[in-house]
Amino acid sequence: MIKIDDENLKDKYIKKYNLDNIFSNDMKEYMELILFEKNEFICRENEKIEYIFFFVKGKAKVYIVLQNGKSLLLSFYYPFMVLGDLEIVSLSRASTNVQVLEDSYCIALPFYKVRNILLEDPRYLRFTCNSLSKKLKKSTINGSINLLYPLENRLASYILATSQRTNVGVLKFSGNLMEISELLGTSYRHLLRTLSNLTSKGAIRKRSNYYEVIEIEILKDLASELYK
Amino acid sequence: MIKIDDENLKDKYIKKYNLDNIFSNDMKEYMELILFEKNEFICRENEKIEYIFFFVKGKAKVYIVLQNGKSLLLSFYYPFMVLGDLEIVSLSRASTNVQVLEDSYCIALPFYKVRNILLEDPRYLRFTCNSLSKKLKKSTINGSINLLYPLENRLASYILATSQRTNVGVLKFSGNLMEISELLGTSYRHLLRTLSNLTSKGAIRKRSNYYEVIEIEILKDLASELYK
Repeated sequence: MIKIDDENLKDKYIKKYNLDNIFSNDMKEYMELILFEKNEFICRENEKIEYIFFFVKGKAKVYIVLQNGKSLLLSFYYPFMVLGDLEIVSLSRASTNVQVLEDSYCIALPFYKVRNILLEDPRYLRFTCNSLSKKLKKSTINGSINLLYPLENRLASYILATSQRTNVGVLKFSGNLMEISELLGTSYRHLLRTLSNLTSKGAIRKRSNYYEVIEIEILKDLASELYK
Repeated sequence: MIKIDDENLKDKYIKKYNLDNIFSNDMKEYMELILFEKNEFICRENEKIEYIFFFVKGKAKVYIVLQNGKSLLLSFYYPFMVLGDLEIVSLSRASTNVQVLEDSYCIALPFYKVRNILLEDPRYLRFTCNSLSKKLKKSTINGSINLLYPLENRLASYILATSQRTNVGVLKFSGNLMEISELLGTSYRHLLRTLSNLTSKGAIRKRSNYYEVIEIEILKDLASELYK
């Protein structure tokens, strides 16, 4: 996490997402622009959270580690999203792992500077109730995905969310397959079989140490409404 | 849903759960004591919600209907619990079905009378943020239960939550088994096999049209921390 001293870029994001409208008071003086580099964690389960983060650019995956030691994918985060809203009210520790999948920017408010102001601000509190409501609805829907959709659909959604465009325009899907099978709540063998199905369908092609997406529309059709 | 005119009983529940402490203003004049009779719905998916309900006595199951038409159990509600907190802020329709498993009481606040007061009340809004945070954490954990725990554990938890003590002291588990298999995210056949396992273990005994719980401790051990 790197603090970026770029007032113009900070103002751009504040305007783009109307961050001023969230608060009754002017909070600009407390706002910091933060860069998380690819694969960095914004928060980890059970760690103390020091900031409210407004996720304004990039992509992140949200997962928990189950009692049996396996990871489980809960959601993908895209702008605009708030992190730490749950924790600031109850002063609890982070309940999920949020890892960025590409370089990502957040506008951050340090808890210890703003907590007393925000807990008395009905406008901010209404915003937070709304944001928590949305997360709760999303959580209910995503929680049913593992039961409702075959792995092929979940995998298509995962590939779309995590693939990276290279300099030469190739859409590249890589990552630790063992880890991905856990995130998607399946076995390694079933994941391999399903990757091979997607290859037969012409959606992806196996390369040396990654998969190339060759027909993105096939993946989009399969992914439809998942993990929104 | 029946409005009960019993000021003493109403006051008893208000005191028991310190409902006064939730609000900055005195809201007693708006509070109504409501009885939901066994199997009645407090809310149904996509219906408009007219009240915030404080669930003060009884037991309810919370479920959604998936896109494939099957039901999925999300949680059990016991006192103390708030319903409608999500909906009052965003004015959205109910996102789950909440059906009471026994006669249950709620203290209700009519939306249209209290909404303007509550949305300006930081104390109530903080309470709601907290309550939504807890629901969100619970939802995350419960969402992983279907992946993490075998059906036997989930079924034990379900039997404990839904069984009824008869007049002669028998703990009786009944219900539509097809419906129960859907709620638990499994097949009818797998449910029957698992009921038969619990019978072999001496936890339950098959009767004419119900199961009798004969060793509740076996079920408690299996259920442990599920669907909290």
